[in-house]
Amino acid sequence: MDNQDIVYITGHKNPDTDSICSSLSYANLKRAQGIDAVASRAGELNPETEFALNYFGVEKQQLLTDVHTAENDGKRVQLILVDHNENMQAVDGIEDAHILEIIDHHRLGGMQTAEPLFVRIMPVGCTSTIIGSMYFEQKVDIPKKFAGLMLSAIISDTVLFKSPTCTDLDKEIAQKLAKIAGVDLHEYGIDLLKAGSNVDDMTAEEIVKNDLKEFQLSGHKIIVSQTSVMDSAAILQRKDEILKSMRQICKKENYDMSLIMITNIIEEATNLLFFGEPTEMVQDAFNKDTADNMIFLPGVMSRKKQIIPQLTQAAKKYPKD
Amino acid sequence: MDNQDIVYITGHKNPDTDSICSSLSYANLKRAQGIDAVASRAGELNPETEFALNYFGVEKQQLLTDVHTAENDGKRVQLILVDHNENMQAVDGIEDAHILEIIDHHRLGGMQTAEPLFVRIMPVGCTSTIIGSMYFEQKVDIPKKFAGLMLSAIISDTVLFKSPTCTDLDKEIAQKLAKIAGVDLHEYGIDLLKAGSNVDDMTAEEIVKNDLKEFQLSGHKIIVSQTSVMDSAAILQRKDEILKSMRQICKKENYDMSLIMITNIIEEATNLLFFGEPTEMVQDAFNKDTADNMIFLPGVMSRKKQIIPQLTQAAKKYPKD
Repeated sequence: MDNQDIVYITGHKNPDTDSICSSLSYANLKRAQGIDAVASRAGELNPETEFALNYFGVEKQQLLTDVHTAENDGKRVQLILVDHNENMQAVDGIEDAHILEIIDHHRLGGMQTAEPLFVRIMPVGCTSTIIGSMYFEQKVDIPKKFAGLMLSAIISDTVLFKSPTCTDLDKEIAQKLAKIAGVDLHEYGIDLLKAGSNVDDMTAEEIVKNDLKEFQLSGHKIIVSQTSVMDSAAILQRKDEILKSMRQICKKENYDMSLIMITNIIEEATNLLFFGEPTEMVQDAFNKDTADNMIFLPGVMSRKKQIIPQLTQAAKKYPKD
Repeated sequence: MDNQDIVYITGHKNPDTDSICSSLSYANLKRAQGIDAVASRAGELNPETEFALNYFGVEKQQLLTDVHTAENDGKRVQLILVDHNENMQAVDGIEDAHILEIIDHHRLGGMQTAEPLFVRIMPVGCTSTIIGSMYFEQKVDIPKKFAGLMLSAIISDTVLFKSPTCTDLDKEIAQKLAKIAGVDLHEYGIDLLKAGSNVDDMTAEEIVKNDLKEFQLSGHKIIVSQTSVMDSAAILQRKDEILKSMRQICKKENYDMSLIMITNIIEEATNLLFFGEPTEMVQDAFNKDTADNMIFLPGVMSRKKQIIPQLTQAAKKYPKD
């Protein structure tokens, strides 16, 4: 790596609190190591993330949705990816970038690079848990505001430690960060989750696109969105309107299937709405009747652990040519 | 991870010294952590690796070329991959295995997993450098014989620190390991490299298959082998015979191109032999006249750093449908 060159640190498209806060916090760690690191974001902030940045007084990072618009003196743009490792979830033009590092907590998504790189993927609840660990391992002081951002990411991704993706390391790092940030973990956590779970003002289209991730499973191009709520009644009353919007996005963007997780963080359960083909894939994945375009999944809160692996396995039976 | 289940730790097909020694050494580290880890190998040992195992009195691990032949009580076989992360280089049946971890030092090769996993890839000269670091980080004592194996892997992969892939970390870990193993690093290193560079007894076919790795570059299925020698004259006299064997393997195994790096570790240069199409890809990648089916590349010793990235970039201009 040429240290004189700028390195952009970016999360995934439709960024969530982890993508935004990991990008900002890792850029700070890299700058402490003498790297000319710049945090960037691949999309707009959601209300939960806005709450976290306001609370800790941090400006959002610059928008970078296409690497071709970034400057690097005509050379390949240098990127560090946080919180994702799949081409479909990455900024446009990723194939022309030089990927230096990946820090993540998801499955491997099939990315190819030309050169060897640094990759640290851990099966923990949040990328910020890994980045927090790196601060502690490398004995770099964590500024109060970045401790607050990483804490917010962990609370968000683990739903205040309730998600099955949550590990002891997530809890340990979150507790250390709360101390540095000077907040009461539980009290701040509830406030943060509340800020992210107000869906009354969201249109059906905004719900379909909320925390949306794209996947390619045995040839099927699918999207899986997630919206967390403290009460499911209001949003489920809008089911028909949301399904209509799912049908529209599938048609417009050429997706085979759209799925939305409506996750009740109090009940710790998910209503999974879906539209598209093959429905047998959903039926096989969760062993539930799919006649209603919705299935109820008690205990399910995690897309990466309780939805994607099951769909991935089921999709193998229905490959698309 | 269910700790009662066996976890197989395997390197790549056509294993080199790093794949064999990293598998054995990481299995020992995992067992020290209470994991029921078993080292396995995806192919036969080369003379250099045999020399290292004999020297330090270690039995070679069990052969496992297809995960379907491994036992796991009818459940998916659990694997840890060392020294590779590409499906084409992995044991057969990899798509049905549960991959728990990847420890590697190569480019990302496009692998997809269903579940989140632990991945540690570092742009260093050798996988055993990473595994040695993990022993030190986790403060696990390194038995003398495993120190010797990891040292052998580092010497082999970095060609006694001469390869451009070699980093300060490789040197630092190698020196620590040499102390534990009780050998003179330079003296042992020369003996090890000598054991691996005797090609007089090798048939042309054995040379074509020596340290062979398969790649998919923009649709082209290519193989790149490497043989290290202390004197290139004898092997280059056999060029026609070797090219004939390259043509045969391409035809038989349906490869688009076979390339062989004849790397002179004294001169620190490589003669690159190639057979197949598109030759423009080789010409573009190295900007040399390719009329002779051989190009001379001074300073080139590393496949992953000085051959594959260049071919990957050039292949983009000549995609195969």
